[in-house]
Amino acid sequence: MLHFDTDYMRGCHPEVLERLAQTNMEQTPGYGKDEYTARAKELVLEACGLDKVTGDVVFLVGGTQTNTTVIDLVAGRYDGVISADTGHINVHESGAVEASGHKVIALPSHGGKMDAGELDSWFSAFYADDSHEHMVRPGVVYITFPTEVGTVYTKNELTAIHEVCDKWNTPLFIDGARLAYGLAASADVSLKVIASIADVFYIGGTKCGTLFGEAVVTRHPEWFGHIVSHIKAHGALMAKGRLLGIQFATLFENDLYLRIGRNGVDTAMALKQGMLERGFELFMDSATNQQFFVLPNELLDRLLPEVSFELWGPRCASHTPVRFVTDWATTQTDIENFFKLLD
Amino acid sequence: MLHFDTDYMRGCHPEVLERLAQTNMEQTPGYGKDEYTARAKELVLEACGLDKVTGDVVFLVGGTQTNTTVIDLVAGRYDGVISADTGHINVHESGAVEASGHKVIALPSHGGKMDAGELDSWFSAFYADDSHEHMVRPGVVYITFPTEVGTVYTKNELTAIHEVCDKWNTPLFIDGARLAYGLAASADVSLKVIASIADVFYIGGTKCGTLFGEAVVTRHPEWFGHIVSHIKAHGALMAKGRLLGIQFATLFENDLYLRIGRNGVDTAMALKQGMLERGFELFMDSATNQQFFVLPNELLDRLLPEVSFELWGPRCASHTPVRFVTDWATTQTDIENFFKLLD
Amino acid sequence: MLHFDTDYMRGCHPEVLERLAQTNMEQTPGYGKDEYTARAKELVLEACGLDKVTGDVVFLVGGTQTNTTVIDLVAGRYDGVISADTGHINVHESGAVEASGHKVIALPSHGGKMDAGELDSWFSAFYADDSHEHMVRPGVVYITFPTEVGTVYTKNELTAIHEVCDKWNTPLFIDGARLAYGLAASADVSLKVIASIADVFYIGGTKCGTLFGEAVVTRHPEWFGHIVSHIKAHGALMAKGRLLGIQFATLFENDLYLRIGRNGVDTAMALKQGMLERGFELFMDSATNQQFFVLPNELLDRLLPEVSFELWGPRCASHTPVRFVTDWATTQTDIENFFKLLD
Amino acid sequence: MLHFDTDYMRGCHPEVLERLAQTNMEQTPGYGKDEYTARAKELVLEACGLDKVTGDVVFLVGGTQTNTTVIDLVAGRYDGVISADTGHINVHESGAVEASGHKVIALPSHGGKMDAGELDSWFSAFYADDSHEHMVRPGVVYITFPTEVGTVYTKNELTAIHEVCDKWNTPLFIDGARLAYGLAASADVSLKVIASIADVFYIGGTKCGTLFGEAVVTRHPEWFGHIVSHIKAHGALMAKGRLLGIQFATLFENDLYLRIGRNGVDTAMALKQGMLERGFELFMDSATNQQFFVLPNELLDRLLPEVSFELWGPRCASHTPVRFVTDWATTQTDIENFFKLLD
Repeated sequence: MLHFDTDYMRGCHPEVLERLAQTNMEQTPGYGKDEYTARAKELVLEACGLDKVTGDVVFLVGGTQTNTTVIDLVAGRYDGVISADTGHINVHESGAVEASGHKVIALPSHGGKMDAGELDSWFSAFYADDSHEHMVRPGVVYITFPTEVGTVYTKNELTAIHEVCDKWNTPLFIDGARLAYGLAASADVSLKVIASIADVFYIGGTKCGTLFGEAVVTRHPEWFGHIVSHIKAHGALMAKGRLLGIQFATLFENDLYLRIGRNGVDTAMALKQGMLERGFELFMDSATNQQFFVLPNELLDRLLPEVSFELWGPRCASHTPVRFVTDWATTQTDIENFFKLLD
Repeated sequence: MLHFDTDYMRGCHPEVLERLAQTNMEQTPGYGKDEYTARAKELVLEACGLDKVTGDVVFLVGGTQTNTTVIDLVAGRYDGVISADTGHINVHESGAVEASGHKVIALPSHGGKMDAGELDSWFSAFYADDSHEHMVRPGVVYITFPTEVGTVYTKNELTAIHEVCDKWNTPLFIDGARLAYGLAASADVSLKVIASIADVFYIGGTKCGTLFGEAVVTRHPEWFGHIVSHIKAHGALMAKGRLLGIQFATLFENDLYLRIGRNGVDTAMALKQGMLERGFELFMDSATNQQFFVLPNELLDRLLPEVSFELWGPRCASHTPVRFVTDWATTQTDIENFFKLLD
Repeated sequence: MLHFDTDYMRGCHPEVLERLAQTNMEQTPGYGKDEYTARAKELVLEACGLDKVTGDVVFLVGGTQTNTTVIDLVAGRYDGVISADTGHINVHESGAVEASGHKVIALPSHGGKMDAGELDSWFSAFYADDSHEHMVRPGVVYITFPTEVGTVYTKNELTAIHEVCDKWNTPLFIDGARLAYGLAASADVSLKVIASIADVFYIGGTKCGTLFGEAVVTRHPEWFGHIVSHIKAHGALMAKGRLLGIQFATLFENDLYLRIGRNGVDTAMALKQGMLERGFELFMDSATNQQFFVLPNELLDRLLPEVSFELWGPRCASHTPVRFVTDWATTQTDIENFFKLLD
Repeated sequence: MLHFDTDYMRGCHPEVLERLAQTNMEQTPGYGKDEYTARAKELVLEACGLDKVTGDVVFLVGGTQTNTTVIDLVAGRYDGVISADTGHINVHESGAVEASGHKVIALPSHGGKMDAGELDSWFSAFYADDSHEHMVRPGVVYITFPTEVGTVYTKNELTAIHEVCDKWNTPLFIDGARLAYGLAASADVSLKVIASIADVFYIGGTKCGTLFGEAVVTRHPEWFGHIVSHIKAHGALMAKGRLLGIQFATLFENDLYLRIGRNGVDTAMALKQGMLERGFELFMDSATNQQFFVLPNELLDRLLPEVSFELWGPRCASHTPVRFVTDWATTQTDIENFFKLLD
């Protein structure tokens, strides 16, 4: 059976597993005070064009945890977080952000993206409102790269959002749960570009080749002054922190993170092209490892015993939108095998 | 100068003040354990068609405090609260509801009201969604009576919402910050009707004749088992609780609450009728003590030195929506004096 | 019947009531944007030796609310608050401080007071502990003046605590719920002294002559940059904010606050002296309006039908500690009438 | 170099690693909806003498996360949690429990243990106090097995605490971060005994052979009705939940959990006996994998370049308490090698 449900169905990339196995019986200090974590921090900072003076990195376990821990760190006590209405924090995190006291302020999304002009207008209207002290003050702007529907902001779009954030003195947080695939799909946004635009962002591991783990990077190292306590108060501090260090060190040695992103995107593009050639309609035009098609229900029913994927929303009368996801492990053979089911 | 900005610009109704003055030097136990509070509870329950066995009442100080304390009591730990997008909790409470961990789930509003059919569809879609465990579970439905734009639900509309809530096993909370005016404006919704439909609701005092104070009523007295600690943990327990008791006892003796509502609505209707007669356009058709008109900017500028009221949103190019609010103290003379400025 | 249970059994001082009554029908803006509140701020700042540039004031409704709102403002996100173990926040606030995420770190109390040397040692040990990142970081030091058992710090003691706080870069918050009585009892601590030592403190109204209300004063006005939203998120923003302004303006005109404190202490001293003359034992030696005696149980039983007061802890075998509280309204006649019951 | 600092310095038990490697490239659903997790739940329930009707299990990542998630689930909204003052939640969790609104109520510890009689007295005094509504209501009792200092409750002691909890209608939560070692050390407390006494407890993985992971078990399955949302709101839901399932399934197949506990305790006993034979003093008499000795400082200084362990508190004048920890991987050869450094 073929599986295209999502990109966190397997364990981790074999190179990552190998390093975990090699180091398994070594004894190191806990809570990220080990050499592997130190090495991973160096590698990540270097890949981001930062160093120990100009930036800082911490490693967390999962995406929702990272979003809530970062937002709760960066935003003021009861500040809100501005997000596209399709943003992960607004839809699929069981209220974790509100659980620590922060309202999600939803702006319209355009193919998953926030528009810089609309963001600016929102800020203008907010501060022009006489009663804004009675409203939720925006403490951080949150966007995803790539978005929940596989699209990527251009460098110009990111820069425009960043300028609005700066204008209104509000930090920008980029959720990079699928960053590897976004970078591989983008013409002009590299990791260094992300790191220079976001005030804080994270490099996703869970969906991009590790067993688990997200690397939070900031170019405001002073924000991490008491970060260990903050993380622990969120229940998010891993005892064997080196597991995160080892995995991220592996991702950022030998270009593994790039290779992972590339594989996800290459197989996704092969899938998309083959579907278009076969006359299927795109539900959404995505450049990354998530692909959205509209399938006739009879085909859908015929496929489901042999290939798994997600219905994107409720089943419709005759044709239903679906999502296929590739990842670091998907092969061109998988794509071809899927096409055999169609042809 | 005439003031129609809002209904909390004065102190309290003279009958309330008189009772506070009469009892001022008496010594009573604190925290609502006094006889005045006991009497107020009896009177409120009776007015609601309830008694000590079938209902319970507590008194809080302010509206936002009441909303967050009640929602945090009634909803599960990180449950959300469904509200019309214009709902006070969604717009004007500085994130107090999220501060205690509850997301506000916004539904479209129709003249300030939530639609029972849309609510039902929302629940259906939520529970049909395979990933709803990753979304915010709705723990309570919140509506306002009257709404933020002065409209009132009919008894049928309330009943329909209530039935949807029951169907989905979710309690209904009615915010009655301006309840006196809503009841006075309604053809078929009495306090007893509210009390029989809402699982929990509050009778507004601050905007309806008291210095401060809101009476929270439930027909599930078991929900109030540890209510004192809950209120105090919210910083909302008044030391001299009798101040609340005395004020609410006064409101519910001699029909004062009805008289207050009636006066607010009568003067508002005189204002509305006079404006219509003078050819002004309604921005929104309200039956209660908030009235919304569209004024030409030149008139607006001429009026502002002599009468205060709120612009309803930003000033527009030629005509701007405005809000006028009457209350328990507004007189027909006030309305006539305002008309003199127009004529 | 005579009542010495506590100092919040009556309404408010007649001069305060008179001002509330005089202004009752005036119309002013809400939420503390009125002239009375502005005037009260001026008067309070002046009494504290501060002005608009060097300090700021906000008014809240009650003590627990004030403690939790201030601590949550001043301490970092999950920082703890150091308190004597007898501190009000540690004992009698239903967990309101923890409700907003802050652990109360309890130090031994000595007659209700914290010892500066012990505080310094605690800080030393904390930061010397290798695992202090896994412990709760102290974000603020909280003391009460006067303490929960009626004692007052000397100026030297306060200064010593302040120096420790400064040494460890941690602000000092003084809870002045009964400040009027503490100031009246102190030889060398004036309001100006408090204001120059505390980073933030509050002047209690509820127990010192107002219906309700506490004035929070800081000499770090930048801390109050978004204070309205913060207060509202705590459900603590009063709609008719002028009620607080009017009451505090009255307290700080014509030396009313001083007179109130003086009356409470004078009557308490008369009570104490009379009890000592009659051979009763002090349970605790208090200089303020709370007095603690040890009464034989037979006397206690004889008194209770005619005078109310608090047992201080559970009833003991033969003699039981009790607390008597005087206030702004207690008269020397009340004390004499009580003595008649004894003689 | 020898390391006895703690029991989370290595990766995982080789049998666990092997299973993770074997299954690495399989594709399974996320968030614990896979077959491995289902199998692990079955095995854990069976080992606890429970089944799907009488109990339930969920898997979390780490200990602090588990404590705060469980306490926040089981205790009422602002209820406190009673713990020995040495309890992990009271000392070493950076305020994670308070972060979700729950005060830790500390009782004296006796060699790390809570005393049932003292607990009962505390409850009696609490509910006898007239002002207990103003205090923090106890919502759950928390103990650790084994304790933070390596001691274990006897079955009688656990039963006595359980009876007090039942008497006061308060659930008992047992933190089993090092449960494997506690069970191996105990004469009469088996996993089934723990499961029949605790209302909810967890079986520690992180310190007992897994890379990470804790299994939360309850005999009140109805408490887990919305557990996925609750876990996710705490940022604690692992995307690749099968990693937890695979590890716990491995622990509970082939008696691995028992073997792990046995090895930790056997090597600890060899260490203790050798130290006693060599004339060293115990700082605390522990039956489990943590051993506490008092070492002369000159020896300590001589050892530190060749063996790592923890100072237990600050270094003292001539002799300093130290902690040595063994685990599933410690060998008798490690112990002998250590002794060679002494002899």
